Amino acid sequence: MTITINAVRAPSIEDVVAAHASLRTRRPLVQALTNTVSTNFVANVLLSAGASPAMVDNPEEAGLFAGIADAVLINLGTPTAAQVESMRLAAAAARKAGKPWVLDPIAAGGLPWRGGVAVELLAFKPAVVRGNASEIIGLAGLGGGARGVDSSANPAAAVPAAVDLLAHATAVSASGPVDHAVGRVDGRTVLVKISGGSALLPRVTATGCSLGALVAAYAAVAPDPFTGLVAAHVHFAVAAELAEVKAKRPGSFAVAFVDSLDAVDEAVLRERAKIAAVGVEQ
Amino acid sequence: MTITINAVRAPSIEDVVAAHASLRTRRPLVQALTNTVSTNFVANVLLSAGASPAMVDNPEEAGLFAGIADAVLINLGTPTAAQVESMRLAAAAARKAGKPWVLDPIAAGGLPWRGGVAVELLAFKPAVVRGNASEIIGLAGLGGGARGVDSSANPAAAVPAAVDLLAHATAVSASGPVDHAVGRVDGRTVLVKISGGSALLPRVTATGCSLGALVAAYAAVAPDPFTGLVAAHVHFAVAAELAEVKAKRPGSFAVAFVDSLDAVDEAVLRERAKIAAVGVEQ
Amino acid sequence: MTITINAVRAPSIEDVVAAHASLRTRRPLVQALTNTVSTNFVANVLLSAGASPAMVDNPEEAGLFAGIADAVLINLGTPTAAQVESMRLAAAAARKAGKPWVLDPIAAGGLPWRGGVAVELLAFKPAVVRGNASEIIGLAGLGGGARGVDSSANPAAAVPAAVDLLAHATAVSASGPVDHAVGRVDGRTVLVKISGGSALLPRVTATGCSLGALVAAYAAVAPDPFTGLVAAHVHFAVAAELAEVKAKRPGSFAVAFVDSLDAVDEAVLRERAKIAAVGVEQ
Repeated sequence: MTITINAVRAPSIEDVVAAHASLRTRRPLVQALTNTVSTNFVANVLLSAGASPAMVDNPEEAGLFAGIADAVLINLGTPTAAQVESMRLAAAAARKAGKPWVLDPIAAGGLPWRGGVAVELLAFKPAVVRGNASEIIGLAGLGGGARGVDSSANPAAAVPAAVDLLAHATAVSASGPVDHAVGRVDGRTVLVKISGGSALLPRVTATGCSLGALVAAYAAVAPDPFTGLVAAHVHFAVAAELAEVKAKRPGSFAVAFVDSLDAVDEAVLRERAKIAAVGVEQ
Repeated sequence: MTITINAVRAPSIEDVVAAHASLRTRRPLVQALTNTVSTNFVANVLLSAGASPAMVDNPEEAGLFAGIADAVLINLGTPTAAQVESMRLAAAAARKAGKPWVLDPIAAGGLPWRGGVAVELLAFKPAVVRGNASEIIGLAGLGGGARGVDSSANPAAAVPAAVDLLAHATAVSASGPVDHAVGRVDGRTVLVKISGGSALLPRVTATGCSLGALVAAYAAVAPDPFTGLVAAHVHFAVAAELAEVKAKRPGSFAVAFVDSLDAVDEAVLRERAKIAAVGVEQ
Repeated sequence: MTITINAVRAPSIEDVVAAHASLRTRRPLVQALTNTVSTNFVANVLLSAGASPAMVDNPEEAGLFAGIADAVLINLGTPTAAQVESMRLAAAAARKAGKPWVLDPIAAGGLPWRGGVAVELLAFKPAVVRGNASEIIGLAGLGGGARGVDSSANPAAAVPAAVDLLAHATAVSASGPVDHAVGRVDGRTVLVKISGGSALLPRVTATGCSLGALVAAYAAVAPDPFTGLVAAHVHFAVAAELAEVKAKRPGSFAVAFVDSLDAVDEAVLRERAKIAAVGVEQ
């Protein structure tokens, strides 16, 4: 279900509520090939939000497991040569099996080796690319987008780059104080802005990484990746708001945030979700 | 010391209390070769419960360190080729030095590569194999047990497989809402059921992994591995009960659980331990 | 600015306050090549205290990134062959670029393979070596110091070894109930003792590792490594005191400690810092 805002059909609060219900019912299995800083937090975020994590990331098993999992996260935070080989195998297997996979291109625009890996992985057609504004801009620059690399942290500035990346992925988002997600509905490019969240999120490590994992979980249960992307951002932002009510510093905020991912239900989503959609001129 | 229940001698609350006192006095050094999701949580669980962790898992040092440590945990959650080589060296060195080691065969029944590793490691005679019901059933199937693989999550259904694994290990447990541990006392096969715990345990990642580490710690200080296995399950289940009194959602429960592992003392053990032993017909 | 105590000029509370202000203003980027147990906690400690973490530790990128980062932490907790190669590259690149780097020689005195790595890394001239007393004594023994290896956990006993290590590093500290830091001021060897902290710190894994990371952060913003070392110890000890007021067991203490690193401001530093300096006879 979608609604029309500013004459644009886009994922709506009704879609978010439906995707959330589906997440809780189906508890999708997410294979996460992620960085060493984030493994524990990513797993706990998935478990608390309503999904199941599995961190199978060796070359011997990564491809096989992508056929078992419901979705795959590939996060370039601390890649090793062996993990990169696993990423290739998992992305290829996910694509072959029709499973959605999410690319989180950490620092891909600034470090040439992983930049090359990111470009190579784009060929396996991720369902979603999620990063912060600099990462989306950096990856688009590597991917042949005309707009190059920009160090701006403003998600609004990353929208043109995100649109460029729709050549490779079904949906793309740049996270920040206001998350910006782009996708296509009825052949038209649409931007959805998700407000809310908390200024404490970037004070806790691996929150962005765990959002990428939640996007993978939602992509497994939503009717399409763009809807899943928007739903994950909303669930995440609403949980961060709840957490900030209880905790004002990073350590206790991280704990309250994991609790809040569990606490988010339909009523909380309807009360707190802040979504706005507009068409994008290209 | 053991008591007789249903005409069976088995590890009792007195043995658990004695093992716990020994843990606190001796603070055994546990070498953990474990998955990337669990390292931090495993270390904190060991420290809070009363042991000392060391995560030496490279091939250059793993064997040497197994001779220094009091016990070894080998957990197959995210094996790499190098870590598997370290596991072989540590298991061999532990066996040679007469140190107990614990095998946690995560997903060994479902993924052939690590399944082969698990079977190979069984030849080094673990003191204890600990897993969830599916993992125990899966490993027994790989190990030549007649009962094959079952996806059931019911620990009671895993008892025959656990008994099969007594061909390789001194004691075996399948964790779940009621933990089921088997071993031999006076030549007779005995099943000990440990009740309690919390439904929030599986909502926090690496809780099972940390239980495996605690089993290794207790195996180092108890008079025999079966007693150590039962004592670890009881300490763990009682701590989870204490934690659930204080916290109702996964993030805060994880914190309260680590606190509670420290808070468990003789009085709490005597008040809350729920152990039942029966003979197993084979 | 330094003050004179017992006729010794040494880093003072004024220097600590200035370094803390600089940390908060500049938010230095710390590249951490650290063990698998500590990655998440180290990153959160840096973020909460006021720095930015990046765990780039593969051989393909470690050297390049050391030229981008403001400081580098090299922690020998769980080295792999590939990570050791990254450590060599990062230490060499940091030295070449004039960036301070910190060596945390976990267990280097007790395990020959990593002992060899530690000695090799000393040739790249760390700004600071930080460890517990046994590690400082063990490393000094490996490094040719005459005083050999001692298993004592008493930081005071490690002072001669720490002074030996000044042949390789600008400043050296041994952590413990009272931290002992040595460096040179006006050509004279000075010992600064930092009291405070909490007995719960060693009950939480990776606290020592995260102190090493905080030392790197302060080394990037302080006028010299010795001042940065003292400032990091004071910030850490004061935060631990604040945390102990709120939490009495390891799980909740870890959370409160991360909060407290954020809460420490100039007033708290002035109220709680306990620093004493003396000259060292050689």
